[in-house]
Amino acid sequence: MTKRVAVIGAGPSGLAQLRAFQSAADQGAEIPEIVCFEKQANWGGLWNYTWRTGLDENGEPVHCSMYRYLWSNGPKEGLEFADYSFEEHFGKQIASYPPRAVLFDYIEGRVHKADVRKWIRFNSPVRWVSYDAETAKFTVTAHNHETDSTYSEDFDHVICASGHFSTPNVPFYEGFDTFNGRIVHAHDFRDAREFEGKDVLVMGASYSAEDIGSQCWKYGAKSITSCYRSAPMGYAWPDNWEEKPALEKLTGKTAHFADGSTRDVDAIILCTGYKHFFSFLPDDLRLKTANRLATADLYKGVAYVHNPAMFYLGMQDQWFTFNMFDAQAWWVRDAILGRITLPKDKAAMLADVAERETREEASDDVKYAIRYQADYVKELVAETDYPSFDIDGACDAFFEWKKHKAKDIMAFRDNSYKSVITGTMAPVHHTPWKEALDDSMEAYLQN
Amino acid sequence: MTKRVAVIGAGPSGLAQLRAFQSAADQGAEIPEIVCFEKQANWGGLWNYTWRTGLDENGEPVHCSMYRYLWSNGPKEGLEFADYSFEEHFGKQIASYPPRAVLFDYIEGRVHKADVRKWIRFNSPVRWVSYDAETAKFTVTAHNHETDSTYSEDFDHVICASGHFSTPNVPFYEGFDTFNGRIVHAHDFRDAREFEGKDVLVMGASYSAEDIGSQCWKYGAKSITSCYRSAPMGYAWPDNWEEKPALEKLTGKTAHFADGSTRDVDAIILCTGYKHFFSFLPDDLRLKTANRLATADLYKGVAYVHNPAMFYLGMQDQWFTFNMFDAQAWWVRDAILGRITLPKDKAAMLADVAERETREEASDDVKYAIRYQADYVKELVAETDYPSFDIDGACDAFFEWKKHKAKDIMAFRDNSYKSVITGTMAPVHHTPWKEALDDSMEAYLQN
Repeated sequence: MTKRVAVIGAGPSGLAQLRAFQSAADQGAEIPEIVCFEKQANWGGLWNYTWRTGLDENGEPVHCSMYRYLWSNGPKEGLEFADYSFEEHFGKQIASYPPRAVLFDYIEGRVHKADVRKWIRFNSPVRWVSYDAETAKFTVTAHNHETDSTYSEDFDHVICASGHFSTPNVPFYEGFDTFNGRIVHAHDFRDAREFEGKDVLVMGASYSAEDIGSQCWKYGAKSITSCYRSAPMGYAWPDNWEEKPALEKLTGKTAHFADGSTRDVDAIILCTGYKHFFSFLPDDLRLKTANRLATADLYKGVAYVHNPAMFYLGMQDQWFTFNMFDAQAWWVRDAILGRITLPKDKAAMLADVAERETREEASDDVKYAIRYQADYVKELVAETDYPSFDIDGACDAFFEWKKHKAKDIMAFRDNSYKSVITGTMAPVHHTPWKEALDDSMEAYLQN
Repeated sequence: MTKRVAVIGAGPSGLAQLRAFQSAADQGAEIPEIVCFEKQANWGGLWNYTWRTGLDENGEPVHCSMYRYLWSNGPKEGLEFADYSFEEHFGKQIASYPPRAVLFDYIEGRVHKADVRKWIRFNSPVRWVSYDAETAKFTVTAHNHETDSTYSEDFDHVICASGHFSTPNVPFYEGFDTFNGRIVHAHDFRDAREFEGKDVLVMGASYSAEDIGSQCWKYGAKSITSCYRSAPMGYAWPDNWEEKPALEKLTGKTAHFADGSTRDVDAIILCTGYKHFFSFLPDDLRLKTANRLATADLYKGVAYVHNPAMFYLGMQDQWFTFNMFDAQAWWVRDAILGRITLPKDKAAMLADVAERETREEASDDVKYAIRYQADYVKELVAETDYPSFDIDGACDAFFEWKKHKAKDIMAFRDNSYKSVITGTMAPVHHTPWKEALDDSMEAYLQN
């Protein structure tokens, strides 16, 4: 086989793709030549923590949006790899909400075992991709920062796995340009201790706002004010956390909200979301989609309908993560290997996209959304040899998680759930999250 | 004439280029079609202030490295346009160290008058440039963020004027990844008031360190510690400013210096310089140079020796700025118009570069360096119709400035100098810099 496949990004999605191909090769299949282009110096994508913000050591936009003291905000039982359990990696079952370093170690364990690092070119941002309909080849142009040189190579397929939680959406509000404190987007937030003793305004009502606000609270912020555009998060917040409706403007250090109330703040953290951003893709290859469960223009959520030799991984909004990326990666692998046949007809692919959109929009209910994405994972898993697992069981873990959050937002991480891969119950963690200030792997694994 | 010229960047250099062509057209010359690609939503380059840091509203790296309360750190008499004096713009002579907003207004005044805004495509980062030796054309691929579309166009010449003070050089020191305060590069520094009451470590011993440290001191930092690798700045600093040798590491909030001394700090500002960074250029077109007066690979400091249909503006380290960019832009214009002939022989161009390098390296003396760059400006001005001006007089202003800084680093901006364009003496500013907290144009012009 002389096919060449480019994978853009060595985060959880890109690594799933490498593992998928390696798994096929391991079972005797002939696989294409795989080249994975990774902008960072190491793998892990968002999970590869850096203290850097803005631009990295090579002058490239920093990919990492994670921060110190980040613990998983959902149970690990919802994201466990079906082909590599937590027990296999750590030699024992571990508690349900691991800090970043623990999950990074877990992700890395599988791909070390699969020996796919050799396929990755690090410090190698992709500058541009083009497609030539006559030759049916993609040309990928990359910058090798190790030699400070650029080059182009041809591929039969491009799999874009560069993520969509790295390019911040940063709105302007009146007074931002004259505010005398720090204004930082969640993407560049790194250490909650910087905000110790401060009155912090957290803008947004989704996962970043909830978690970054909680981090600041846990590490000693004087007060948290969070504000929402559509609906409050509505948790039973601690006494020094208040939810406000939308910010209207700042005057000096005073924030003015839609209900006419005001609050003096020292710092503003924008938890205002991310953009799907692909600086390296021309119009004919570039996905444009909202952050939703049914992405635009992706047949089966992965094949780009306008050029189905191109694939995207992990571009959905996510309840399921690592195991969904696996399901996608195995499916894309099989499409490339010819084990799965894509419709010849673009209309059929567009109809698939439309059906997914309609079905997503049928309900606003959270449980519906979780089940919707579970069904998507089931659908893909059923079409490949990815190990089947108890996806309904993972849904149950998510439903429990939602209940535990509603009960006590500052204590939900003290709960534990049962692995749907090994059937083992996770231990209760040795220290309540509120009191666990050390986020190291060593500290976490002392159960 | 059917030639097409692409100018990348609408900062002081790019705008000088537009003005140069417009000036020729105004005098009856037939000029090429000019397309200026500008990443930002407005012109002015570094002088177009934004509160944003990291990535901008389009997801692009923020270009601006300026901050609130920035006043020119050199006398305006050293940078005055020969074809557009401060008196012409403001209707009167103004004091010698204008804040950013005043200089932005001045830059903008000339190009408004020249009516060149129509040549600029805003929100349009260049993604890639390639050169085809057969057709002798450049293909420029750009992203139009207003329509979220990419496109390519061909040009006979490309003039890269994208600056080299926007991509931070960010070193790592042991302990940066566990420091609990803010670590920010000068590029992302925006408001000194954020550091009021703090012990601030400023790393570096060049202009950014001097000026950002001074800003923090002026706006109420508790103490400034600055550290140097080669030599201290050596000014008579205020009592709460101490210079230290190189940082060795951090342990917690404690900075350890090469002399064994330590200092507890709340925040670290990296004034560690910038990189020449061109993400849109392949190896055959990409300038690689140190930040010095004699750039590598540029004949006459502007024509790229490996492809002299390509030019670079303002890539030198700079004593002279706006008027040097003008001298370069007029020269490049005349090379493109065929009024100046470049050597056919690459060896001759390389010899020009080598001669400039040798001559720069002949002395470490600051006055020598200033005169060296003055000679360069004189050389280019003599070869075009750019209005000749008293370049030695500008040198004298620089020499006086150096003396005034040595005398009192926190008061040098209270001095004034004579315009080398109009011969008028600048007024003494109404308020000493140390006490002038309002950096608005309105406040500054009240002389």
